[in-house]
Amino acid sequence: MVLYHSPKSSASRRVRLCLEEKGLAYDARVIDLSRQEQHSEAYLKINPMGVVPCMIHDGRPLHESGTMCEYLDAVFPDPPLRPRDAYDLALMRNWIRYVDGLIGNLIKFNWRHGLAQRAAQMTEAEFQAMIAKVPSAERKEAWRRAAREPYTEAELDEARANLLVMLDRMEGMIRGDGLIGGRYGLADIATAPFVRRIDEEIAPEALSPSARPKVAAWWQALTARPAFARADFAPFV
Amino acid sequence: MVLYHSPKSSASRRVRLCLEEKGLAYDARVIDLSRQEQHSEAYLKINPMGVVPCMIHDGRPLHESGTMCEYLDAVFPDPPLRPRDAYDLALMRNWIRYVDGLIGNLIKFNWRHGLAQRAAQMTEAEFQAMIAKVPSAERKEAWRRAAREPYTEAELDEARANLLVMLDRMEGMIRGDGLIGGRYGLADIATAPFVRRIDEEIAPEALSPSARPKVAAWWQALTARPAFARADFAPFV
Repeated sequence: MVLYHSPKSSASRRVRLCLEEKGLAYDARVIDLSRQEQHSEAYLKINPMGVVPCMIHDGRPLHESGTMCEYLDAVFPDPPLRPRDAYDLALMRNWIRYVDGLIGNLIKFNWRHGLAQRAAQMTEAEFQAMIAKVPSAERKEAWRRAAREPYTEAELDEARANLLVMLDRMEGMIRGDGLIGGRYGLADIATAPFVRRIDEEIAPEALSPSARPKVAAWWQALTARPAFARADFAPFV
Repeated sequence: MVLYHSPKSSASRRVRLCLEEKGLAYDARVIDLSRQEQHSEAYLKINPMGVVPCMIHDGRPLHESGTMCEYLDAVFPDPPLRPRDAYDLALMRNWIRYVDGLIGNLIKFNWRHGLAQRAAQMTEAEFQAMIAKVPSAERKEAWRRAAREPYTEAELDEARANLLVMLDRMEGMIRGDGLIGGRYGLADIATAPFVRRIDEEIAPEALSPSARPKVAAWWQALTARPAFARADFAPFV
């Protein structure tokens, strides 16, 4: 198994955490997003979508972290990371979909580090050539903002508020050590990279036991897992 | 089983087609989007997300058409509508995710009918009160545009072009009677409401056998299915 990934990308962190929970060996190859290696000819041959992470298993490429994790759980079912109950499984998929939809809020914080500085050093022509390769209009605009017109405090506040709504929803969902069905699994894994960044920079106080006791205990248990240490959620800054 | 739906909503059409393929009986209840019934107190008690479709099965609500269809296939496995192979299943999920991401393009055409006219008749205060209840910023803006500042021809051309890229991808994927694994199933069902609108109004010529022979044959076979007739893909206009 080969994993093309970026150490700090939230989607890459998800897949690494899933692989580590499964105890699977993989050949991790870093794609440097700040150098746009995801849009290089070589990488586009591997993954025409030009995104990380992407894995190659049995000679076949697969992208999209949520899909990759479900695939890993189907092909390597031990330990199981999805609920067996069809309804809980549906709730798990809807939760991951909801978290996926929050990525725009996370990017506003994440791209201020490293990527923005590198883009700021580009000439206008270099910068335009770079974002011309970004397929998503939303991501193009996020690049432009990060590099050329940094998000205002009001915009960051709004993004932070959206992420806190996620924490509030979690506080109402957690039972035992999991978001879905009372067991740790792919829903928790999908959410961990978001909570890591909230803890690190965006709103650490929101994770205190007095603010959200269930989320605080969930996060403490998650970060204590051996797989979490191996998955490398290293500091951004 | 109860299905809350809107006859012309693409997501509702997906779920109806899936239910009809399974031969399942269901109590269909229309939620009138042009009257914002999806944001009514009564409906929010059923589905706090305020979206259609939503179904109640075994007393439990479930929203999100892609998730609903996978749930139906798990609980009512005959006839199977998902590939058994884990990799094909992953490709199916990524395809549905990709099509979901195109909905903004479809809305630009769909909301010109009915919804826009009704919104145009509202006072500014009524209109603001209505869109205040729409959770998604993207959808709020789409409402505003449909009702107050109709999309330009250039914008509609761009949306059409994005949908034609979908058809081009399909032309490269279709084998037998299906998009994934050579068999008709949830990927085809998820795509059918989009192709219906392309056929009806957006770009009918794009579906001609000379333009895209595989897509043309696939669409002809799909629309000939008895379940398609029962699922009610009635004309928009």
